Amino acid sequence: MSDTHSLDALVQALRRLPGVGVRSAQRMAFHMLQHDRDGAQLLARSLQEAVTHVHHCALCHTFTEGEVCATCLDPRRDATKLAVVETPADQAALERTGAFKGRYFVLMGKLSPLDGVGPHDIGVHKLIDRASDGVVQEVILATNFTAEGEATAHVIGQALKSRGLVVTRLARGVPAGSELEYVDLGTIAHALVDRR
Amino acid sequence: MSDTHSLDALVQALRRLPGVGVRSAQRMAFHMLQHDRDGAQLLARSLQEAVTHVHHCALCHTFTEGEVCATCLDPRRDATKLAVVETPADQAALERTGAFKGRYFVLMGKLSPLDGVGPHDIGVHKLIDRASDGVVQEVILATNFTAEGEATAHVIGQALKSRGLVVTRLARGVPAGSELEYVDLGTIAHALVDRR
Repeated sequence: MSDTHSLDALVQALRRLPGVGVRSAQRMAFHMLQHDRDGAQLLARSLQEAVTHVHHCALCHTFTEGEVCATCLDPRRDATKLAVVETPADQAALERTGAFKGRYFVLMGKLSPLDGVGPHDIGVHKLIDRASDGVVQEVILATNFTAEGEATAHVIGQALKSRGLVVTRLARGVPAGSELEYVDLGTIAHALVDRR
Repeated sequence: MSDTHSLDALVQALRRLPGVGVRSAQRMAFHMLQHDRDGAQLLARSLQEAVTHVHHCALCHTFTEGEVCATCLDPRRDATKLAVVETPADQAALERTGAFKGRYFVLMGKLSPLDGVGPHDIGVHKLIDRASDGVVQEVILATNFTAEGEATAHVIGQALKSRGLVVTRLARGVPAGSELEYVDLGTIAHALVDRR
């Protein structure tokens, strides 16, 4: 219908959000126009602001508005340890533990050959430059324990080890609070192999 | 973190979309900034455009960019029949059947006293004005067959009948293509009562 051109365009634009199909997009568009026009304008401004101001940290590749992010600038952090994570959300999870005081490198993705995501796309060359600065002594691979995350850790680990760096991986094992009876066999097997 | 202010603001703005929690909002923000900045700018423009240009049809209350929507302006449609639906999506579903050639009134919601949505919020007074134009002979209540949709149909039906209008409701019954064995009892009971 030609008299709803900008509504149709909005539905199409909303569909570019991850996990949003045509029905969700319609529901979002109707909701914003019917009940929350302030929210729609706020979202429009926020998108523009974020696209204009947010870019990648020159050191760790995460999102920041400065040249270098706050974590990389913090002088209290241990510059000899570098944790490699897939996303800023994973970095935030590590931060919430309070158990890591080193620095980060955020891949902003994971190796996924089927989707055409190769080592260059996740900035492996930048990571190698970053880890070879002479200060970093240990690279901790904290990618996810999924098939892609494991493959990513393997590829990065090989590349870094061949340059003489110490590379470690987060321990696999039984999650805190769980009963062995209900833990999957692969996890128990790993916990046995990695026992200490 | 102060160096990700506009990213945080974007996540908060995305949470105002229906069905989007904090994790989905983060995933959407990361995805747009990492992989689809064009999409983010398109969405920002589309939101602005829609908020500026889309408003309610003066006759049927649906979304339109003109004074009156294309359906209401179409002279080939039967002005003696008026279907009352909850949303433009419901209207689109009726249109896809090709079985209705009359006009519409879109409530843009449903009665929901628990959420504070009363008759005034769904434009019942406008509907009464619209249906009392002297041309409309039959009002077909096509609200959903949910608890709220039924209550809405009941309230609207009472108000219209008291003004001497002919009011009908979509038939309840066994869906096309279904086997009785698998149809719920309430539906079969209604189909028995409404047998013809």
